[in-house]
Order: sequence, then structure tokens, then C-alpha cells
Amino acid sequence: MPPTGIPAIHLGPDHDPALARGIEEGGGRLAPLDDAEAVVWKGGPDSFPDRLPDAVRWVQLPSAGIERWFAGGIVDDERVWTSAAGAYAPSVAEHAVSLLLAGVRGLGEQARATSWRKGEFETRVGTLRGATIAIIGCGGIGRAMIPLFTAFGAEVLASTRSGTPVPGAVETVAASRNTELWSRADHFVIAAPATAETARLVDADALARMKPTAWIVNIARGSLIDTDALVRALSEESIGGAALDVTDPEPLPDGHPLWSLPNAVITPHLANPSNGLPGLLAEHVRANVERFATGEPLLSPIEIERGY
Amino acid sequence: MPPTGIPAIHLGPDHDPALARGIEEGGGRLAPLDDAEAVVWKGGPDSFPDRLPDAVRWVQLPSAGIERWFAGGIVDDERVWTSAAGAYAPSVAEHAVSLLLAGVRGLGEQARATSWRKGEFETRVGTLRGATIAIIGCGGIGRAMIPLFTAFGAEVLASTRSGTPVPGAVETVAASRNTELWSRADHFVIAAPATAETARLVDADALARMKPTAWIVNIARGSLIDTDALVRALSEESIGGAALDVTDPEPLPDGHPLWSLPNAVITPHLANPSNGLPGLLAEHVRANVERFATGEPLLSPIEIERGY
Repeated sequence: MPPTGIPAIHLGPDHDPALARGIEEGGGRLAPLDDAEAVVWKGGPDSFPDRLPDAVRWVQLPSAGIERWFAGGIVDDERVWTSAAGAYAPSVAEHAVSLLLAGVRGLGEQARATSWRKGEFETRVGTLRGATIAIIGCGGIGRAMIPLFTAFGAEVLASTRSGTPVPGAVETVAASRNTELWSRADHFVIAAPATAETARLVDADALARMKPTAWIVNIARGSLIDTDALVRALSEESIGGAALDVTDPEPLPDGHPLWSLPNAVITPHLANPSNGLPGLLAEHVRANVERFATGEPLLSPIEIERGY
Repeated sequence: MPPTGIPAIHLGPDHDPALARGIEEGGGRLAPLDDAEAVVWKGGPDSFPDRLPDAVRWVQLPSAGIERWFAGGIVDDERVWTSAAGAYAPSVAEHAVSLLLAGVRGLGEQARATSWRKGEFETRVGTLRGATIAIIGCGGIGRAMIPLFTAFGAEVLASTRSGTPVPGAVETVAASRNTELWSRADHFVIAAPATAETARLVDADALARMKPTAWIVNIARGSLIDTDALVRALSEESIGGAALDVTDPEPLPDGHPLWSLPNAVITPHLANPSNGLPGLLAEHVRANVERFATGEPLLSPIEIERGY
């Protein structure tokens, strides 16, 4: 993409001071849509313009997962589209590690207790020290977890589509070899994008292969886990537990067994809170505007044929 | 302490394979009490011998906190006594960080929820990224937390009795200056030994100075916090919350308000589970036997006048 000097960027659907500052600090200027070379969008797909001017060569979307933008037929091949994948990586990584620690240390059932059940709980306390943690779909978010897990004395096995070695992981395998990880790793963090290929990646067979003390964390999308199979595994205590920030169905309906299983912890899709940990999207926008202005490759480009 | 070749060490009150291996790997040999130069004790004070042979020049106790050994009049000044302070540091540090993450990310109230309360919970999710965490009583356990907190992008303020700079902390203050920390730090980990000086270190005044989003973690002893003042602060939401592995009274009785406050998380004194994360005490014993055999200063010596 050729350099454009001070690019004219439309910020929509509403003004946002932090994002405006990110655009300006990245070397861009705010412009109406009709004059814009690029669009930074902080809203959802429903309010997105039906047609973009031909001059718009780049659109920055505000979320890391972009299924709804594909489903709405908004992403086209006439310009570059970028997601916010990576922008929220530090927050999502922190949440994922928090969930795995909560699981392994038994904090879920302990938080629900209303009496001093030391003898019972103490026998189930585990540690990340010396544990092997598989990060399934080890992209930007997974890579942000590696130094965290490593600090606790754990080792990371990475699984990626290509199998290209991930720095900091003791081993990286291609997603086609995931099956061998289910029995090898002590715990799992599901961090892969939601695509047709990753739907129900964690199914009854995967669960059956896992160690009886294994915890599964999902901070990706609920569809990556077969919920019914997971509920069975948790009920039978054939795995240690599951800590899920995303569920299928989502929102998880009242009365669903996952609400009451002692070895399940649910957080309502807030690993990247919308409130929320302000500044992370603005920093991503700043970095991408700078790259746009200088003609460098943009962060987190969407590939239509890949689906994310 | 002069070197003793292959020291004769009594392991009591019962045999323990991991500790026996620690003694042997450290260069010692197992011996009956009457022939022993040193004692490694894995039981409590109740079963401790009434009198030790004069030849016993060192006693290794199995716990990090040793109030009960002082209270029982067991620790004397006729030999060197060492605690297990430090042995459990990795486990206790992991638990402390888990508790603070659980607090800051809201996992306690989320774990108790039985419906998808995203809008409500999401506004309260915080992060350790950019936070300043004061470790009050930053000894071996506190020092083991520093690389963990640092990995999450937090800074550590250390408070120690002497104020001697703690490596990795951005600043170390003497305990006499704790008062200024209450308003400066975002969150607190209480890790000081229980002594007359540290009793109710966190009192109503300290709590009143803290930020309204501050979480307090206690992995030391319940007596370091004024429980009634804490319950008031939590009820009034004048602080973010408290995650406590130790309580006063302990065990926390059924019906105590700390069991039901949404911003309190209680774990029943299992940061160092007795089950438990095997090998940590054995490693400490191995290191100390090696030092005893070669005449080096022992790890974690107890100082009677200091009280720990």
C-alpha cells in the first residue's frame, strides 16, 4: 500500500476521543466519510454504511472476532479490512491465565463455599509449576499468554494452523496434529478463531483423551467446544474442569448445567470488557494509522477466504 | 557451624520417602534420635520430643509460620532452628497472584452467578496491567511474586522491616512507612510474618486510605487484618474487595459475613496445600542438609527475639 502523507480517516459511527487521538497520533486526520481514504469503525455491523466510497482503501473494524461482519456481507475484496485481533490480546491473555489459575487452584468451588472446607478442597489444589499448557490456536492472544505461563514455571505447547514455530513455546504443532496434544498437555487454552474447521474442535473424543486433572479454558468462541460433551465430561469428572468466558449457546441460558457444576467456572464474555481497559483499541488504531500513512503492511488484516 | 562430614539426621515423627530422599541427596544419613546431630520434623508441635539430646545442633521445622512452636515453648536457644519459610514460596506466590487476579477480574462474584450478568459484571473488570501492587512484608514469598506480577505489566512496591531494596521492586520502603503505601498502591498483598508488631497492620485507618478499587490479598496470617474493620469496608464498598487465604478467626465460622459478601473471596488456608504440591519441603530439606554438612549458613533460621 503506497504512503499517503497525512491520510484522511473517517471515524464512525460516533466520535470517540480516545480513538480520535489514536488516529491523530498515528499521523492521520479526521475526515467525513465522503472525503476519506480509510474508515475506523467503533460500532457494530448494523450501523455500518451500506456503500463505501471507492476512495476508501482500508477499513479498521473494532472487534477481534468478525463472524458478524462476514455474516452481514460487509467485508468485501475491494479494499483492505483489518480486525482488532491483537489489540485486546493483553486483556484476553490476562483473563485466560486468571481462569486457568482459578481452575487449577480450585477458586471456583472455593468462592461458592460458605463454610471452611479445607480438608476437602486442599487435596484438589494444583499448580501451574511444572505443568504443560497447550494453547490451541496460538495467535496474538496466545503469544501474549506465553510469558505469563512461563513466569509461573509452566511450559507452553502451541498449536497453530501452519505449525510454524511460535517463539517462547517449547514446541509448536500444526492444527492437523491437535489430536496428539489432548493426551500430552496438562491443561488447555482454546484461543483459535471460529471457523468451519474449528467448530467443535474440543469434542467427546478430545475430552476422552485428556488427563483427569486437565482444565480447559475457552476465551475464543463457544462454538469451538461441544457443550453437551463437555457437560458430560464435567459431570463424570473425567477432566479437572472448565473455565469458560464464551459458551455455546451464548448467552448461557438460566438453568443450564454449566451454571451449577462445581468444576465449571463461567465468566460472561468479558475477557475483553467493553467498558473497558480503555486505550487498547486506541493503541491498535494508532499503530495501524501509522502503518497506513507510511505504506507498511497493516496489523490484523482480514483474509476473506480464511474466514478471519 | 562447622562441617560434619555425613551428618546423622533424625526424621520424625514418621518416615517420609520424599524427605528421606531430600536428606540423603543433601549429603546426610538417617539416624535414630539418640544418635542424631540434627532433626528434620514433618509433624506438628504436639508430637515433638519433650527433650532433645544435647548433640542435636539443628532442628528443621516443617512450616513457614511457627507461632505454635513458639507458643508451645519448643524453640530454644541451645541449637539452631530453621523454619520452612521459603520452601513453599512458589506455591504461596502462585496462590497470592491467583487470588489478586480473581479479585481484579471479578471471578469471585462471577463464579457464584447462575445467570449471564454480563452488563453488570463487565463494568467492574479490572486489570493488573499498569497497576501498582504493594507487597507488605516482602520476604521470600513476596520476592517470588515479583516476576509474576511484573509479567502481567504491574509494578511492585515492596515493604520490608529494614527497607533494604528488594530486587525487582520499583521501590522498597521500611515497614515504618507503610502508612504512605495505603493510598499509593492500587492493590495489596499481605505477606508479613505474624508478630506483635504486625497484628492488625491493616486496620480501619489503613482501609480508609485505600483506593475504592483496591483489592487486598492475605496469604500471611489472619491476625494481620482487623476483620471487623475489613467487613465494614467491604460492606460499604469503600475498597474493591478482599481475597483471603487466612482469616481471623480461623477457621472462619459458618455464617460469618465474609462468606456472603460479594466482594470477598475466601480460600481455606491452602496456598500451601498439605497434600500437596509434593517436593517443595523435600527440596528445602535437601538444600539445608547440604548447607549443614558443609558448614554453610542455613536457610530460614528462626530468630527467637524477632519472633519468626
